[in-house]
This record gives sequence, C-alpha cells and structure tokens, in this order.
Amino acid sequence: MMKGDLLIPSMLERAERFFPKKEVVSRTSSGIHRFTYKEIGKRTRKLADRLQQFGIQRGQKVGTLAWNHHRHLELYFAVPGIGAVVHTINIRLSPEHIIYIINHAEDEILFVDEDVFPLVEAVYDKLKTVKAVVVMTDNELPESKIESVFSYEEWIRDGSESFEFVKDIDETEPAGMCFTSATTGNPKGVVYTHRSTVLHSMSLSLADSAALSESDSVMAVVPMFHVNAWGIPYASTWMGSTQVMPGPRFTPDLLAGMIEKEQVTVTAGVPTIWLALLKELEENDYRTDSLRAVICGGSAAPAGMIQAFEEKYNVPFLHAYGMTETSPLATVSRLKSYQLDLPQEEKLAVRAKQGLLIPGLEMKVAGSGGEVAWNDEEMGELLLRGPWIADSYYKDDRTDETFIDGWLHTGDVCTVDEEGVIKIVDRTKDLIKSGGEWISSVDLENALMAHENVFEASVVSVPDPEWQERPVACVVLKDADKNTSKEEVLDFIRPTFAKWWLPDDVIFMEEIPKTSVGKFLKRALRDQVQEYYKQTK
Amino acid sequence: MMKGDLLIPSMLERAERFFPKKEVVSRTSSGIHRFTYKEIGKRTRKLADRLQQFGIQRGQKVGTLAWNHHRHLELYFAVPGIGAVVHTINIRLSPEHIIYIINHAEDEILFVDEDVFPLVEAVYDKLKTVKAVVVMTDNELPESKIESVFSYEEWIRDGSESFEFVKDIDETEPAGMCFTSATTGNPKGVVYTHRSTVLHSMSLSLADSAALSESDSVMAVVPMFHVNAWGIPYASTWMGSTQVMPGPRFTPDLLAGMIEKEQVTVTAGVPTIWLALLKELEENDYRTDSLRAVICGGSAAPAGMIQAFEEKYNVPFLHAYGMTETSPLATVSRLKSYQLDLPQEEKLAVRAKQGLLIPGLEMKVAGSGGEVAWNDEEMGELLLRGPWIADSYYKDDRTDETFIDGWLHTGDVCTVDEEGVIKIVDRTKDLIKSGGEWISSVDLENALMAHENVFEASVVSVPDPEWQERPVACVVLKDADKNTSKEEVLDFIRPTFAKWWLPDDVIFMEEIPKTSVGKFLKRALRDQVQEYYKQTK
Repeated sequence: MMKGDLLIPSMLERAERFFPKKEVVSRTSSGIHRFTYKEIGKRTRKLADRLQQFGIQRGQKVGTLAWNHHRHLELYFAVPGIGAVVHTINIRLSPEHIIYIINHAEDEILFVDEDVFPLVEAVYDKLKTVKAVVVMTDNELPESKIESVFSYEEWIRDGSESFEFVKDIDETEPAGMCFTSATTGNPKGVVYTHRSTVLHSMSLSLADSAALSESDSVMAVVPMFHVNAWGIPYASTWMGSTQVMPGPRFTPDLLAGMIEKEQVTVTAGVPTIWLALLKELEENDYRTDSLRAVICGGSAAPAGMIQAFEEKYNVPFLHAYGMTETSPLATVSRLKSYQLDLPQEEKLAVRAKQGLLIPGLEMKVAGSGGEVAWNDEEMGELLLRGPWIADSYYKDDRTDETFIDGWLHTGDVCTVDEEGVIKIVDRTKDLIKSGGEWISSVDLENALMAHENVFEASVVSVPDPEWQERPVACVVLKDADKNTSKEEVLDFIRPTFAKWWLPDDVIFMEEIPKTSVGKFLKRALRDQVQEYYKQTK
Repeated sequence: MMKGDLLIPSMLERAERFFPKKEVVSRTSSGIHRFTYKEIGKRTRKLADRLQQFGIQRGQKVGTLAWNHHRHLELYFAVPGIGAVVHTINIRLSPEHIIYIINHAEDEILFVDEDVFPLVEAVYDKLKTVKAVVVMTDNELPESKIESVFSYEEWIRDGSESFEFVKDIDETEPAGMCFTSATTGNPKGVVYTHRSTVLHSMSLSLADSAALSESDSVMAVVPMFHVNAWGIPYASTWMGSTQVMPGPRFTPDLLAGMIEKEQVTVTAGVPTIWLALLKELEENDYRTDSLRAVICGGSAAPAGMIQAFEEKYNVPFLHAYGMTETSPLATVSRLKSYQLDLPQEEKLAVRAKQGLLIPGLEMKVAGSGGEVAWNDEEMGELLLRGPWIADSYYKDDRTDETFIDGWLHTGDVCTVDEEGVIKIVDRTKDLIKSGGEWISSVDLENALMAHENVFEASVVSVPDPEWQERPVACVVLKDADKNTSKEEVLDFIRPTFAKWWLPDDVIFMEEIPKTSVGKFLKRALRDQVQEYYKQTK
C-alpha cells in the first residue's frame, strides 16, 4: 500500500475542488461576510505564499489571537500548508501567561483580531521572537507603537492565489499548537501533527461520532483558540459542510439568530453557552428545527440541560468529552441501538454520561490496584492512547507527570459500565472548571499567599448554575486583628489573573483542614464551604 | 502526538468490549448460527492461539477458500492478530489460477469451506508450501487423501480464549492479501496493511460514505474472497454493527428472506445480485423497509436498477466504485445537498455516476495531453493515490505497468464534472465484466488460438441483462472446410477456465478487423458483433 501521508492541505483542496460553491459564513466586527470554498482556497493560498515570502520556515510557529471567523480559518490551512505550525492562543489568558506562551512557542509572527490588538500592544515589549503583527480587520489599521504592523487584507493582496501547498511533508510533522492551563505554573503546550489532525477530523465525521457531512451547516461556538474549536473547522472544511462562524463577542441572541438564519444543523460549545442559549430561546421566538445536533463538551452537561434541549426544543444533544491533550474528541455519548427503547429517564442518565470511546483510541481505567472493573461503580483515572493523543508537553519538564508508559493520564476520574460507557465523576487534581475552562486553584492560592497578611489560602469550587463551577478562596490571616478585607485580598491578585479566574468570594477561616502530611484536604474543605453557603444564603 | 499504530486487532477489541451482546448472524450449510461479539472475540483468540502454536510466523500467509460466514470473519481478525497475512482466495477461479495464487503467495495453511474442499483436494499435489488444510464445517470431516486435514471446531478447541493479540506491529506491516485478474497471464496479488485496512474501515464509516454505524444490520453479499467483501466485515465489526452473513450458494429468495428477518439496514453487492433480488421482490412479498442503503459496486449500476430500488421499493441506492488495488472504496455517489431539489431525472443521472472521491484519497484524470478538464466531457484515465491504494503487485513484474510516478493507473477511463463527480465511461483495456468479476479476453483468445484449426480469435463483450456483459468469441478458422463446430471450440478450452469465463457464443468470421500495427481493433469488432446480434436475434 502507498504510505499516503495524511496531510492538512489535502483537506482544503477537497473543499476547493469538490465543493467550490459551498460557503463559509463569517461574522466579523463589521458584519457578515460570505466566502465560497473556492474563494477561501484562493485567499488561503495567497496567505501561504505571503507567509513563505515573509520567511516562515518549516516547523516555525505562527501565533493567532483571534475569534472564530474566515481569516482564522485561512490561517488554519495556510500555516500547515507551508509546513509551519499554527499556534492558537487563548485570548482570555492573563497577560503574563500570554507572554509566556508566545515566548515559549517562539512565535515568529502574530495574527491578531482588532479588539485583541491592544492586549498584544501592551505586552509586545516582552515578546522575544515576534517579528511582526498582522491585524485581522475590515477597517483602517489602528495606530500603534509597534514597528511592523500590517493589515491582513493588504498583506495577502500580493500573494499568489495559485500557490502550491507543500506536500513533501511527513504526516508526523507538527502542524498546530495549543496551550492548556496547568494545576500550577505556566500553561503547557500540546503540538498537533498533520496525522493527528487528519485522523481526528475523520473521527469527527464518523456516523457514530458527530457525523459531520456535506449536508451540514456547522457552527462552532467553541473558540478557535480552544483546541482548534474541537477540530470542527478542519473536519467541516474537509467534508464540504457550510460553516457559520460567529466572530467576536457574540451574544445568545446573535447565536440563536444565526442558527435560524443560516439553518445551522450542528453547533458545538461548552455548557455555559448552552445555558445562555436556552434562556434566550425561552424568552424569544426562534426557529431551531434545522438543528440535528448540539455538541456539548468542555465540562459535564447537566441532565436538565440535555432534557430541556431534547424535550422542549426537540434538538438532539450530543455530550462529548475530551481535552487539549486529546485533540480533543475522546468520547461521545450516544445511545446504543438496543437502548432506544429504555424509559426516558434511563436514556437521559446514559446521555448525561461522557459516553463511548471514539473508534481509533484505546482506554484503561486505573485504580489504586490496577485496572478497575467495568461495573459502573469502581472509580479510576482515565488513561488514553491513540493517534490523536499527545505524547508530551512542548519543551516542558512536566511531561513525565502526565505521559506514563505510553498512556496519557487524563487526571479525570471515571466509572465505566459493563459495555464501556464512561462517566467522569471527579478529578484527580482539584482544578476548577468555569465556563468550560480550567482555573488552577493552586495558582490562585500561591498568589493569595503572597499577600503580607495571608497565612494560608486554599481555593475550592462551588457549584454555579451559569458557569458550572466558580472558585471561592478560603483564607487564614496571619493577624486576624489587622483590618484585611475581602476586597483588599482580591485587589491584590487582580493584576495577575484573567478576570474570570478571580474567586467569587473570600471566606476567612481559623484554619484549613489538612491531611496527615500537611496537604490541604481539598474535598473536606469543599464540603465545608458548600455547607456554609447552604446555611448562609 | 503518539504514533498510535492503526492496527486491525483493536477493531475487534472494540466490538468485544463495547458491543459484547451485538450479534453476527451466520449462515452455513447446516443452518443459521448466532454469535455475539463476545463469543466471536473468544473464538478468534482461540484461533489466533492455535495459528501461533501451529507455527505461523509474522508475515506468513494463511489462505482461505470460503464463503461469507462467522469462521471466515474470525480468520479476518485472528490472522492479522498474530501479525500474519490473511490471503482470501477467489473460489471461482480456474484450478490453474488457484494453484498459481497459493504457490505465489506461499500459503502455509488453508482454511476451506466443505463444499470447496474437493477443489482443494484435486489440486493439493501441486501446492508447494501448504502444510495443512482446515475444513470449516459443522459436520464430520470429509474423508481425504490429504495427510493433514483438520476440522475447524476441533482445531480451535484447545486455543486460549484470553490469547493476547500481537500489538508490537508497525501499522505498515502486511495484514491481508487478495489477487485480481489480469488482462493476460496470472492473477496479480495486492497486499493490504494494518494501516490501509483501518483507514479504509474509517472511510466506510464516514457519514458521507457508507456511514456504517452501530445501529446498522449489515449484510455483505459481496464475497469475503472479493477484496475483503469491500472491507465491510472489518468496518462493521469495528463499529459494532450487527452482521448478517449469507454463507454458501445463496439464492435471491434467501437474501430477501434474510433482509426481512434480520432487519438488514445496509447490504452490498454487484449489479447482478441486485438484478436477481429485484426479480425476487417482484415475484414474492418481502418487507424491505429496514433497508437504508443498497451499496452497489464491481461494475456500473444501470440507472433503471437504481430507479427500481428507489421508486418501487423506496430503498436508497448507493453506487460506489473501486477495485482490488483500492481496498476497494474509491468513490461513492451521493447527491450533494444542493442537488436534492433537482428534477428526478437529473438526480438519477448523477446517482448513476460513480460519484465523488472518498475523503483521504487523491485523484487525477490523465488524457493524452496531461490532465483533462473537469467539464463532464473530456475523457482520461483515472489515477488514484492515498493510504489505502496499492503501490505494487506482490512479487510481480507487472507492477511498473500500473503504478507509475506514485499513482495507481486504474485502467478505467472517466469524465469528471465541474465539481469532481466521476463517471466511468470505458476501460483502457478490454476486459469483460461479468457479474462483477473480470474476464480476460486475452486469456480466452490465447487458449482458443491453441486449437489446431483456429487461425485467429478475439473475444469481446456483449451486453447482458443479467450479467452486465458476457464474452463472445470471434474465430477465424484455418481451414473453413474442416468441420469445426462451436461446441468443439468451447470444449477445447473448457478445462482451462472457470465455467463463467466461457464465451456464450462463438462466431466464425472471415477476418478480424485490425489496427495498422496488426492489433485487434476491439472496439470495431465489438460494434460488429453487437450489430450482428441485433439483426439475427
């Protein structure tokens, strides 16, 4: 058999040649744009040509700080199309982490949305490798103190629309990069390859997975800086689906309006988004009957939400699980054919689980005494391996903590039923999941404890109807008589973190429960805090 | 990213672990058997263990001469499960070709259906490498002059049902093998790898391809000795579909009955089968409403047949194209979403084409002056490449005729429309396609011309309502006065060929039209013969 390297450019070429008239509907700050795949193809080739002219070499990194729109999609293909690596940067991270990430990845050039540009400008002096910034705008270029700033449209103008994508690449060469928050310290980088991206796209298009298809109109609400919008832009392009990209700072009414107007069949995002959408659908009238799947991941979807979509709006809900290290699709929750006749309540219970491993991956669930029984009760850490699972963090000492004996240790604790259905029940570490994003309790604790009057601090999660979980800080003061307020404590750490990382509350305590070896007993503390709120609110 | 070798054993393991209760419904000469994937898994492990005990080494060949049933399925997984190569042999070939194939592949052991056993016994003395024959029977072992003959069930009895499949295989190692008829001379061998088989299975399960799914009940009518039954047993097992295997010497009423009883949702076979099924459905009452796809390949499906299935029986028809060298799935004909509103006749015209290239493959259409325009008119030879396309014939000098500059030259001439839809219009060579199988005109001609009174012979196809095409021999006698009859000519070549290869008729001619360099002008001759039948019948 031919080797037939699995390469990203071939995916776009399929859309260009077989679905030239199908559209990418892209919202930017100036409104809705419509481009056919034929046009997207030409623009992407121009961009690739210009990147090569600029001097970007095989394996070098191109950073993006951008929302979901057509230019970001063009970068998804143009950068791997010259053998370089598209590094999508989470614009919601703290400036400190953004600086770290760009320097650690050694980004050569940044492609930045106009509303993110001020953020980049503010940190630009600290970026060690970046040689230019391209602003993705429909408007005039903003004034800037940065020397090399270009407007995307002007920049690509002179590129050749018949540029040939590099094809003499090995499928295991890097193509993409994304950082994930760590329990402690700086974010950790995951590098995707052509092979992993193509296989992951195939997995998304399997009938028993998300079944992405030419006949779909796909709207990824999950940001393109968040694990490649779960790989959806790649798979949708490959299959020739219509793509609907909601652009910057979208609102629930905007999403509902786009679903109606663009006849969206598949959409994907975190539970927080769907809670907001449900509220919007309750308050205003929209047609949603084009939807065949609402894909939900990032954190567990509450059963009530699944029920509301399915029963009130007749919109099939697809619960999925994955992480940055898994490209991300690892499991998807679908009823097996012989479960279709179960009572509604039992079906809902199955659907609320994380589901079944995607074909192509392998799993183990490791308890303290080896693999646990598949009996829906025993708990263990979920270990994964397969061709779209990371094998390391990018130039990071922490690799060995997570990648052990060829398995990714997910840090998620789960049960498995007799026939392989996974339910995530806890986390080995105590990260807080807010709006589908991780918040590191340890990072917050370290920052809090840097305050002169803080003796000890521990951050735990409390359930939150909108964000799933929110952090609450428990603080023991050195001198309780000293007048240290909640506000003072929060103001102290405010400059270090993204806004949504900040704890919702600070509870002053006499002491924090600890294990025998002096570690915070997080679970006991969490129970204590939740009990406290029950009694006081 | 992890390499995550794509290996065949993982596919069965998924069925064992996630779909243990789903069934394989298998018809053998003694009736219907039902095995769950859990049972199939155990039996396959026992078989793999016994193969290893027998001494089968990595890369060695295990031959099968068998119909579609559960034991054949077990071989599909057990043989690659120990790193060996499952070599499926077309039981319809002439004894001469079967001998060649087994010796050329160097099969170590043969697994044979009881009704094929006499054929094997007859040629056994000429097999150079075969050390034993295992008969796949529910009955007593037939008496035999062959020394090492075993009964499958007895043979696997002592194998370990917890045998661990070999996993330290590279995905590019060989796993399967199938021979294809050649224009002239012996059949040519194609070797499949773990990688090609897994990727091909993924391609079959894409929403936009055959969309094989857990919820399907899949009946491959196409034989398991014919390009792995188009890969369907592998993909169906992986996805956890119910499998329905029609066994030996099935009849149209048997197929229709199984569709009804086993609630078959997807079935696959050559046009000849579907013509026979249509006839059966017209003559007797069956429920066919479980069917969501009748996959048709092997040769072009007549538009009338597509129409009959869709309009009379409301059964969606899926026209596909491929060959032994392409694993075989290369194209599938589906309407694009924006074609759904076309008039019925136009839709039918699109559906009758071979369709769109499967994601993961690449194509070129080469005319005499380079690539042809995609305008639905210009014709050229279809060239293919990709990870499930062969790059050579097994130890065969003819490799260089077909695999050129990294492309498979299919020998099929096609047109392509503006958006990539392929229509096969002719063949570069003049093979005759009867019932989905190739017949080599050149082989027949050579045999005919060995007759003492035959001066020249050329074999061309005539259209046939049942078999698509049938061969007719045109013969110029050396001495026309000598009393050489049609029967005599046919009797002369009868021992050399499979029954269905024999020409339906012999036309005696004065001369055969030739090109300037003395080659038979096949197209002119074909027209002449077809005209002759029009006037005389």
